[in-house]
Amino acid sequence: MNAIDSAVWHRPTAALASRYASVRARTEALAAPLSAEDQCIQSMPDASPAKWHRAHTTWFFETFLLLPHSPGYRRLNEDYAFLFNSYYEAGGPRHDRPRRGMLTRPSAAEVSAYRTHVDATMEGLLREPPGEAAALVELGLQHEEQHQELLLTDILHALAQNPLLPAYDPAWREPTAAEGPAQFLAGPEGVAEIGNPGTAGFAFDNEQPRHRTYLQPYRIADRLVTNAEWLGFIDDGGYRNALLWMSAGWAARAAGGWEAPFHWHRRDGAWFQYGLGGLRPLDPAAPVRHISWYEAEAFARWAGKRLPTEAEWEAAAALPRLRDAEGVAWQWTGSAYRPYPGFRPWVGAVGEYNGKFMAQQMVLRGGSLATPPGHSRATYRNFFPPESRWQFTGLRLAEDAA
Amino acid sequence: MNAIDSAVWHRPTAALASRYASVRARTEALAAPLSAEDQCIQSMPDASPAKWHRAHTTWFFETFLLLPHSPGYRRLNEDYAFLFNSYYEAGGPRHDRPRRGMLTRPSAAEVSAYRTHVDATMEGLLREPPGEAAALVELGLQHEEQHQELLLTDILHALAQNPLLPAYDPAWREPTAAEGPAQFLAGPEGVAEIGNPGTAGFAFDNEQPRHRTYLQPYRIADRLVTNAEWLGFIDDGGYRNALLWMSAGWAARAAGGWEAPFHWHRRDGAWFQYGLGGLRPLDPAAPVRHISWYEAEAFARWAGKRLPTEAEWEAAAALPRLRDAEGVAWQWTGSAYRPYPGFRPWVGAVGEYNGKFMAQQMVLRGGSLATPPGHSRATYRNFFPPESRWQFTGLRLAEDAA
Amino acid sequence: MNAIDSAVWHRPTAALASRYASVRARTEALAAPLSAEDQCIQSMPDASPAKWHRAHTTWFFETFLLLPHSPGYRRLNEDYAFLFNSYYEAGGPRHDRPRRGMLTRPSAAEVSAYRTHVDATMEGLLREPPGEAAALVELGLQHEEQHQELLLTDILHALAQNPLLPAYDPAWREPTAAEGPAQFLAGPEGVAEIGNPGTAGFAFDNEQPRHRTYLQPYRIADRLVTNAEWLGFIDDGGYRNALLWMSAGWAARAAGGWEAPFHWHRRDGAWFQYGLGGLRPLDPAAPVRHISWYEAEAFARWAGKRLPTEAEWEAAAALPRLRDAEGVAWQWTGSAYRPYPGFRPWVGAVGEYNGKFMAQQMVLRGGSLATPPGHSRATYRNFFPPESRWQFTGLRLAEDAA
Amino acid sequence: MNAIDSAVWHRPTAALASRYASVRARTEALAAPLSAEDQCIQSMPDASPAKWHRAHTTWFFETFLLLPHSPGYRRLNEDYAFLFNSYYEAGGPRHDRPRRGMLTRPSAAEVSAYRTHVDATMEGLLREPPGEAAALVELGLQHEEQHQELLLTDILHALAQNPLLPAYDPAWREPTAAEGPAQFLAGPEGVAEIGNPGTAGFAFDNEQPRHRTYLQPYRIADRLVTNAEWLGFIDDGGYRNALLWMSAGWAARAAGGWEAPFHWHRRDGAWFQYGLGGLRPLDPAAPVRHISWYEAEAFARWAGKRLPTEAEWEAAAALPRLRDAEGVAWQWTGSAYRPYPGFRPWVGAVGEYNGKFMAQQMVLRGGSLATPPGHSRATYRNFFPPESRWQFTGLRLAEDAA
Repeated sequence: MNAIDSAVWHRPTAALASRYASVRARTEALAAPLSAEDQCIQSMPDASPAKWHRAHTTWFFETFLLLPHSPGYRRLNEDYAFLFNSYYEAGGPRHDRPRRGMLTRPSAAEVSAYRTHVDATMEGLLREPPGEAAALVELGLQHEEQHQELLLTDILHALAQNPLLPAYDPAWREPTAAEGPAQFLAGPEGVAEIGNPGTAGFAFDNEQPRHRTYLQPYRIADRLVTNAEWLGFIDDGGYRNALLWMSAGWAARAAGGWEAPFHWHRRDGAWFQYGLGGLRPLDPAAPVRHISWYEAEAFARWAGKRLPTEAEWEAAAALPRLRDAEGVAWQWTGSAYRPYPGFRPWVGAVGEYNGKFMAQQMVLRGGSLATPPGHSRATYRNFFPPESRWQFTGLRLAEDAA
Repeated sequence: MNAIDSAVWHRPTAALASRYASVRARTEALAAPLSAEDQCIQSMPDASPAKWHRAHTTWFFETFLLLPHSPGYRRLNEDYAFLFNSYYEAGGPRHDRPRRGMLTRPSAAEVSAYRTHVDATMEGLLREPPGEAAALVELGLQHEEQHQELLLTDILHALAQNPLLPAYDPAWREPTAAEGPAQFLAGPEGVAEIGNPGTAGFAFDNEQPRHRTYLQPYRIADRLVTNAEWLGFIDDGGYRNALLWMSAGWAARAAGGWEAPFHWHRRDGAWFQYGLGGLRPLDPAAPVRHISWYEAEAFARWAGKRLPTEAEWEAAAALPRLRDAEGVAWQWTGSAYRPYPGFRPWVGAVGEYNGKFMAQQMVLRGGSLATPPGHSRATYRNFFPPESRWQFTGLRLAEDAA
Repeated sequence: MNAIDSAVWHRPTAALASRYASVRARTEALAAPLSAEDQCIQSMPDASPAKWHRAHTTWFFETFLLLPHSPGYRRLNEDYAFLFNSYYEAGGPRHDRPRRGMLTRPSAAEVSAYRTHVDATMEGLLREPPGEAAALVELGLQHEEQHQELLLTDILHALAQNPLLPAYDPAWREPTAAEGPAQFLAGPEGVAEIGNPGTAGFAFDNEQPRHRTYLQPYRIADRLVTNAEWLGFIDDGGYRNALLWMSAGWAARAAGGWEAPFHWHRRDGAWFQYGLGGLRPLDPAAPVRHISWYEAEAFARWAGKRLPTEAEWEAAAALPRLRDAEGVAWQWTGSAYRPYPGFRPWVGAVGEYNGKFMAQQMVLRGGSLATPPGHSRATYRNFFPPESRWQFTGLRLAEDAA
Repeated sequence: MNAIDSAVWHRPTAALASRYASVRARTEALAAPLSAEDQCIQSMPDASPAKWHRAHTTWFFETFLLLPHSPGYRRLNEDYAFLFNSYYEAGGPRHDRPRRGMLTRPSAAEVSAYRTHVDATMEGLLREPPGEAAALVELGLQHEEQHQELLLTDILHALAQNPLLPAYDPAWREPTAAEGPAQFLAGPEGVAEIGNPGTAGFAFDNEQPRHRTYLQPYRIADRLVTNAEWLGFIDDGGYRNALLWMSAGWAARAAGGWEAPFHWHRRDGAWFQYGLGGLRPLDPAAPVRHISWYEAEAFARWAGKRLPTEAEWEAAAALPRLRDAEGVAWQWTGSAYRPYPGFRPWVGAVGEYNGKFMAQQMVLRGGSLATPPGHSRATYRNFFPPESRWQFTGLRLAEDAA
């Protein structure tokens, strides 16, 4: 039994209302630089329009909080139940994911009105939230934080389709990351415990339960791989040497025409990187980003290293010298995304939240420059298919110690 | 030699300026009901965003009139040359057609500014247009009129992707068409002349030259096929009887899941038709629209008739009793779109205007409810691939007389 | 009314039986160089295995002759009705065309037995064929002759998939064609009659009726375009100049990676041509073959000429100086394949023979080195989609005379 | 360092020669029921023609044994190096995998000659095999045994494309499997060792090294899931309930039209199963086969259980009461195919054997009715993508014990 209303998520009522207001406002702040047109397009099936992210997170509160817990509440618009459900089979039929970009209506302004309407009703609910609702509110906020990151990654992908390569925010600042030679830190050996106990604040079901695993001797780099190191891989023919790659990765490389990380542009012999701040000269010292798992894995082989497993990563996160664990780039691990021993999806409609994606994806750990502050943690399990490149994805190397 | 600056298109300078203003304003009026988001999306590779239509028609004047004929003119934005060229190979590289919907920037407002800028410069040019320019201005206006129709057909397709089926204009009025039983009129037999002599106002190169052809005895219906008649085809299993169809049409039917004309919806046992005015009950007396050539051809076979050739259609257009030749729906003919004997494309960059599309398309004649008044004529040759359904396409039946 | 049993096809009974034996034996002779494996594969959906051609032509006699006209006849194998029907909707369900290559069973040997069985029964029928059957026998033989050509074109395509480029018959001799500079012959002008009257031997329904058409003044080359001339097109950048091509052709070129005719190979700087005799040095004097309509049309534009219409070709076929009308290569025309005025498909099951393919195909005239002797004629209409290259297709140029 | 010539694989010279002859003969015996046509076709890109399996296994001995270790040996045919290399990048360019079915030549008879030729030379080599060669011979034989199983699974898939559903061997006998209610056996808990130590006979690199892992308390079924149990899943709507499925599996189900295991046919209300013996009534007591991982995983969820991890499976293999560990069906596990801690691919050309496939595949354990006797073992790791159904794949359930 893994009920969503675990007591540990509860916050004082006032704190919850404040956090609600803050998270919701942050979403709007992220969307503020975007025109109605920017918010409407969908540049690939895996991405969603910014407007849709804003509406879907609102639908979540309307569906899972207001309808069951706010007596007399009726949906602002019955059509929204169909348009803004993402993937909840239990939530009834829904609009085709790859067609989200066709929704010119409701407009961005109507979505703003939807957000305002739901927020106003939520404000009332949050004055005296029923016990079983508080945990769902927290889940809704965590959910919205996840979509905040997706809003940024998706709009970066969308704007990248424009040959003018417009900036989302010309003043966007990339994070500074650890520099200097990588040190390989010895990780703990033997039986270790990983996973979230679920007794100290919010955690997703997929991080639980905390459980024992066995770690062979290993070492892990204290910083992320840099653009300069990646240039070494490119210059050494890394993208042209099949022996470095997984077979499926070699095929993905060919199909995608990969010759460098996503968003790298070569102009007049110099490398540039497109990002939320627009097109800028490539910073050699910055951690490499926008690489697929296949590329990360091939790079590691080229470097004579390997990717850490997610257990190794999590165990190493406790090491005081491990740098850039969060806030720079998600870090591909060598682990496929599968349930932990003893995994129980949440009960009820939100049980579809994580479990049904535990196939054909690889785990990433850490957190990126686009991850909302405080959202990630050492036990957090992010996951994407191995060919994905549009997220803020990088890598940290590891090796066997024995 | 088929120079574009044929003297016959010349209008008095004042009339040309007035017509320029009128056509340009009409485009804006057509776009007025559309939000910036509506104007941005591209719902299939064959369609273009409304914003793109507005910009491309402006690019046409900038490229073919202002740059060569307005001394000192520079493009408002050099990027627009790349973004808003449609298919002119001679005009240099251009943005991929299927990716036009990714252009959230320039915004609809920036496109408005572009139009204003070009119009202002054109205003000057039109005060004393050089002789060779006047014909190109007329071509630009004819071109813009064509895009006015496409703007409507494309936005109808785009809004149709929205499950809410929004109306472009709730007050939109469908044309009234001829009613009553169809009469089959005897067409002229023997050697006939068709095609445009090019000596009486504007005509496209593909309508020329006027030339002799031979007509076998035939009869042609005095009105278009109606929705009621099409329901008879459906009810008689027309969509399920392979023997009525071209082999390629039968495959297109299966691939598209066709069971009725495009934009027909069956709800609770009744038929509705979606159009620019939104979803309305199907009008049995109205001419059928949004059918592919394959469907039109199969219907004609089912009815024991056939489609008229384009020569038959054009010869019949002179018959006083032929109704709804224009203004209701484009009428599929049995003729493939190929050059007339003696066809010469225009010289220069606009030579790509029509000629390179003379493969794998079928000719339509007449004009639709979306065709700008005065734009079409009896010699006008419209053309689309036989599987196209998103245009305002209908049919008129014919038969052998002998 | 266009009944298949037109009296004009009748031959004396003895002659018909002899012709039957001869045509059937020729098919087997063509298949003789092929192993069971060669006969089994299908190298693309548009092609069929050699074994299938042998079985399908046999099915035709079984279905349209033996079942209706040979009392008591039962199919040798009921499954064959499903497996070897090609496209006759009226003939019931059938095996998917693109999956013909999956039929390892029945074996080539079983197909031989099928042919022997049907031939034996046909022998009896042919001793005293009922009146309505004789015409169907002739149709069956004409049909088998068409498949003889397809057997050769399809096996050439199939063997071309093998990187070893094996020869079908190392002793295969290519036809000799007219040489020397092309002369442009003046064609007849004014009202002309084309089409087959159907009163002098076999003709397909699509060649009929003979009817009037109108020819503008034109000239037509007395020989086919040669490989040497095609090399000039290549060397002049013909495959890289979009302005020479139909828009759809330019796209087909890109999708297919066309840089030369199909089956041309460049090795160590020299051109070779793969054919039924294997890989041989390109013969500059030979007529170009294995070109699509798009390539032919682009070549003609490059040469400052055009393709003849099918009416022009047919009218010119009567000119004494027109060379290589038959026996060398099918000649693309500028005419789309549409029904003649007054066209009536045959009645009954064979009515599907030609009519349902009259969309999206271009007419070819003449006949190729693979066409059975005596099979073609001046009114014969062959047809393929404009991107097809695996047939023995070439071109003859024409131009306006005025 | 993980050299292929590990001393532990060595067999006495006489035994090795005898085993060579036996394995090679078994391949030929498996191909004996197949005609040359049967051996030629490739029914999907993932499958290979039987003839190709016979040639490729021979190429393996020629390339890795005869060329380096048999002085003066030259390839029987240099083209075979290109045609019959499977996926060894280090082995040079090779024929496209999806086009293997286009190779009508060399013929099946020529492949027989190739086998005879290589066997004769190998016979000499095996009289006094150099030390480093003996291990490669064993690898070649293990490799050929793997292809023996693939030959059977691939020919089953190929013959299944034929609407006649021919039998590979009408006398084929399905294995008998454990019956009666499933008992759930308690597995070992705590630190366990899995993997092959590589010191007791042949083992693939991917089974090594033996290493420690941690097992949570679990129970595992003592027999495989049966067809009768699978019918319960079907009848309970298992194929129509999205909540039971991985999201990617639900999509695969829709794309493939899955409503039952592969090779199940419903005729007149009764279920039949197609197999190497032809179409037979479904045996309810037999273990279910030809299911994808997605189906297995959904079934387990429906049953309130889960799939065992590969570590659980391997640890349970030592339990005396575990039935049908081998010889019936490969058993999907919940583990993604990734390298073991400390994994080292073999050095040299055969290093590509396993490692580069360790992405996007799931591990299967056990062995099937088509696995050569003695080929599998408790540490054996088989792997296929989760949508694969053409192998002899079944499942065994597990559950948490705590």
